[in-house]
Amino acid sequence: MSDTSYYKHHVFFCLNTRDDGRPCCTDHNAEAAQQYAKKRCKELGINGEGKVRINKAGCLDRCEEGPVLVVYPEGTWYTFVDNSDIDEIIESHLVGGKVVERLKI
Amino acid sequence: MSDTSYYKHHVFFCLNTRDDGRPCCTDHNAEAAQQYAKKRCKELGINGEGKVRINKAGCLDRCEEGPVLVVYPEGTWYTFVDNSDIDEIIESHLVGGKVVERLKI
Repeated sequence: MSDTSYYKHHVFFCLNTRDDGRPCCTDHNAEAAQQYAKKRCKELGINGEGKVRINKAGCLDRCEEGPVLVVYPEGTWYTFVDNSDIDEIIESHLVGGKVVERLKI
Repeated sequence: MSDTSYYKHHVFFCLNTRDDGRPCCTDHNAEAAQQYAKKRCKELGINGEGKVRINKAGCLDRCEEGPVLVVYPEGTWYTFVDNSDIDEIIESHLVGGKVVERLKI
């Protein structure tokens, strides 16, 4: 049941905030990273239908591995530390189609 | 660059709220539908790793076609009117693996 994907790469950042003591992605500046990714994709002109969409998401339930993002339809999960990691995911994976193995979870 | 998907079906409901006059998914009770879907998948025991995840998402940018949800990794987009549509998507697509053509966008 595959379709041509509406977005070539649809990226979801977990932006959940927990207050129950479990770790959560927003402990790690996930929101700033999502905003940075969105801005960079616009600057690169790769955002939009048939191209890339950077989205906010609720809890993706991989909290202990956070911060996390997932790229669909390929289903590649990443963690990241700072904007240079986000840059590498954008340039290697979203632009170049090559998974960043060192950030993959 | 395909991987075995962490979730067999990862469902994202657009829960964006707009105040700029454009239509938005939360005009159509998308939040209640997302909560309903989450509850039903738990009741059916189909939620969790290797199975189904029902997620909230920010604006998926198909506002004029809303309310919308997308199921990954297959990349199937749906609209819906009420909980009976959500039930049909759960039973046919998430449980049975069969796309609900009448709700597909």
